[in-house]
Amino acid sequence: MNIVVVGFGKMGQLVKKTAEEHGHQVVMVVDITNCQDLDALQEKVDCVIDFSHPDNLSWMIPYVKKSGAALVCGTTGLNDLQRKQIEDLKDSNRVIYSANYSFGIAVFKEVLSLITPMLEDGFDIEVIEKHHNQKQDAPSGTAKLLVETMNPDHEYKEVHGRNGMVGKRQKEIGIHAVRGGTVAGEHTVMFLGDDESFEITHTATSRQIFVNGAIRAAEFLMKQENGSYTMKDLLFKN
Amino acid sequence: MNIVVVGFGKMGQLVKKTAEEHGHQVVMVVDITNCQDLDALQEKVDCVIDFSHPDNLSWMIPYVKKSGAALVCGTTGLNDLQRKQIEDLKDSNRVIYSANYSFGIAVFKEVLSLITPMLEDGFDIEVIEKHHNQKQDAPSGTAKLLVETMNPDHEYKEVHGRNGMVGKRQKEIGIHAVRGGTVAGEHTVMFLGDDESFEITHTATSRQIFVNGAIRAAEFLMKQENGSYTMKDLLFKN
Amino acid sequence: MNIVVVGFGKMGQLVKKTAEEHGHQVVMVVDITNCQDLDALQEKVDCVIDFSHPDNLSWMIPYVKKSGAALVCGTTGLNDLQRKQIEDLKDSNRVIYSANYSFGIAVFKEVLSLITPMLEDGFDIEVIEKHHNQKQDAPSGTAKLLVETMNPDHEYKEVHGRNGMVGKRQKEIGIHAVRGGTVAGEHTVMFLGDDESFEITHTATSRQIFVNGAIRAAEFLMKQENGSYTMKDLLFKN
Amino acid sequence: MNIVVVGFGKMGQLVKKTAEEHGHQVVMVVDITNCQDLDALQEKVDCVIDFSHPDNLSWMIPYVKKSGAALVCGTTGLNDLQRKQIEDLKDSNRVIYSANYSFGIAVFKEVLSLITPMLEDGFDIEVIEKHHNQKQDAPSGTAKLLVETMNPDHEYKEVHGRNGMVGKRQKEIGIHAVRGGTVAGEHTVMFLGDDESFEITHTATSRQIFVNGAIRAAEFLMKQENGSYTMKDLLFKN
Repeated sequence: MNIVVVGFGKMGQLVKKTAEEHGHQVVMVVDITNCQDLDALQEKVDCVIDFSHPDNLSWMIPYVKKSGAALVCGTTGLNDLQRKQIEDLKDSNRVIYSANYSFGIAVFKEVLSLITPMLEDGFDIEVIEKHHNQKQDAPSGTAKLLVETMNPDHEYKEVHGRNGMVGKRQKEIGIHAVRGGTVAGEHTVMFLGDDESFEITHTATSRQIFVNGAIRAAEFLMKQENGSYTMKDLLFKN
Repeated sequence: MNIVVVGFGKMGQLVKKTAEEHGHQVVMVVDITNCQDLDALQEKVDCVIDFSHPDNLSWMIPYVKKSGAALVCGTTGLNDLQRKQIEDLKDSNRVIYSANYSFGIAVFKEVLSLITPMLEDGFDIEVIEKHHNQKQDAPSGTAKLLVETMNPDHEYKEVHGRNGMVGKRQKEIGIHAVRGGTVAGEHTVMFLGDDESFEITHTATSRQIFVNGAIRAAEFLMKQENGSYTMKDLLFKN
Repeated sequence: MNIVVVGFGKMGQLVKKTAEEHGHQVVMVVDITNCQDLDALQEKVDCVIDFSHPDNLSWMIPYVKKSGAALVCGTTGLNDLQRKQIEDLKDSNRVIYSANYSFGIAVFKEVLSLITPMLEDGFDIEVIEKHHNQKQDAPSGTAKLLVETMNPDHEYKEVHGRNGMVGKRQKEIGIHAVRGGTVAGEHTVMFLGDDESFEITHTATSRQIFVNGAIRAAEFLMKQENGSYTMKDLLFKN
Repeated sequence: MNIVVVGFGKMGQLVKKTAEEHGHQVVMVVDITNCQDLDALQEKVDCVIDFSHPDNLSWMIPYVKKSGAALVCGTTGLNDLQRKQIEDLKDSNRVIYSANYSFGIAVFKEVLSLITPMLEDGFDIEVIEKHHNQKQDAPSGTAKLLVETMNPDHEYKEVHGRNGMVGKRQKEIGIHAVRGGTVAGEHTVMFLGDDESFEITHTATSRQIFVNGAIRAAEFLMKQENGSYTMKDLLFKN
């Protein structure tokens, strides 16, 4: 597969390195400073992988459309219009967007979709996430993603910490953000019932897993027709 | 619901107590010593719950057939003929059989069925189970059940302990039986991949949960037509 | 050992049952309604065990002093005067007081005293406690006890939940109160450092352990001279 | 501090990089190919750090003795004579040797020394260690180190896996080696008692922690007099 990587930052470098280790060719790394050179590319481009910044969409999307390349996008902080621009590629291109390309988290979401209806009757749901001591926001975006999967209609109140005479537990989901050391990312969902509990934990020890997921997504798109895909498709159609 | 409980042992007593707490009537507790009194029962019997001994099947099954009651059976150590006798009730009765009525373990099996095909490519599977220091067999029947779900065709070698120069890990599932204290039962399945892991743990703190599952199963049967059911049906049709 | 148990409640009953299983004699169970019968007791009383209510101290303490019995007291909610009344028994009796007779929690405290000075330089401390969904206060008294051991001078800010843009972690201890199901009590202290973590967890699956600790404490006192003891003495002198 | 690093391998490079990040000077990296240049070094050498191969001791030890530098040695596979050669430096130099410089594991050993005598009476001991799927030996050297701390007189039989009708647990320590994925190293010791358990886990996510420990050890030696030290001294005298 011939790949164009958008962005020279840490993620861009890691995407390039990993893609090459998987036997793919990275024909160009590109950002705003050299994007005008895209048109002069001799090689056919099979896929564009972008984990960079929303500003790059202005020239990246037209290039994808024009070249017919598949798009794997993991850029966060997009506004609604930008999300729609990516979605609209589905008629002319193969495109996948996700805020988290970890394969394990995709599986986690599927598991929660399956079991929450089975368990929510007799079990209380609590979530613990752990991240390094430099992380500034809480809870993590991934924790929010997992909670959203279990609480799509916001029937449960989301509780972020308990202190004092809080009274008996209500219809709620407790979300606990542990911070410390260099923890790359750990997410646990607990279903606590009468004399039994069911607990699921995903642990990431490096950001490599997000890149691995993106490369898998690119390889997946090569086998698909034009359209918009999600990590869920990757799990089931692969 | 009017219930007949088979067996005066610990499980029988717990079934009686729990059924009554759920608002049901236990109209008789019965074993070989008083089974001849079943015929004289005035009350209509809705369900028979049996966690006793295979020997009781000889009079229990004919009674179930004759009375038309539903049957919830958790007796273990049945031979093939006995299993078939229970299965054959499906044309005239509603019947469910399981070696483990824990709701959480039923969910666990479903989750493993879902995710093993997704994960087995890039992840190594290992199982840890913990039980009290009086348990005589290893690994636990439930651990075997979970492994069977992941390894139905015995593609993976099952490894029970590693010691010495064992060499790199092969196509195998490691199964570790921890024994100690009064642990009622804990089962963990780990999927260990490149820089990420996915781990599921079920913890039981009393045998009450098996009884709770049996009562749920009985309540479930009340709403079904004649047939043979499993804990899986309970999860999805309930 | 001949024992007088104070209180007819759940804890009193469990103390009686457990003491007898350990081969001791419970010569009387007593509360305000029958305390006047204590004087008529024929048997020599070796030990009084009290997990009841502060109000009982008014007649319990004089009886202990007069009879020369040892005292194991686990009654909570005492005021300063009441604590002093118990402490003052040390000249004439053998006495032990603790808010938590679990042996494991006593060990936990000792471990934290040992390792906090070793680890606090390069590791961040976080605490998770889990209890059943009926518990009304948070965090648990035991969690506070453990944190007090690590933070005696309140150098660390105690943080009870994180939500929003909280910024980088400061000089703080995060304390997370998980609530759900019938969890009897679980306490975890995490030391999270650079690329390594050190984690300690104590799990209680019934209130039996508190009673076991009290019986051990009574047996310990039998071998001591008059004085006031703590669970720590039990660990080291036993 | 001026440091000489022995060995150009992965560990040598990591030691160099880390030492410089801590503000130290690495004045030379040396192995058999350039060890003759040591004598021409202009800078005073404060410490030699060696995580290389036993063969290098033949010229490394004489250099340490002659230069008066402190020695931090983590080379494994030494024979008795080689161990004695290092130990004998204690009269003329400051020297520390350890097979595992992880700070957390040193703390782990101290904790086990403290609590094993407290807990071994009523608690069963089990050990789980997890490592990547390329590791060839089991259990890990560190697991053996921890078990040795708890079982110095080999009173407990060490059990490496349970399968079949093994009968009730005896006076034994179960040691379970989990293998999978890229796990850098996790060690858990469980004390399982009546209705309570006490569990300690150390997790390493990179080999960086071993290097960090070596740098700490070097800094520690700078403040000591001639003699032979261990990681335990580092914990208590630092």
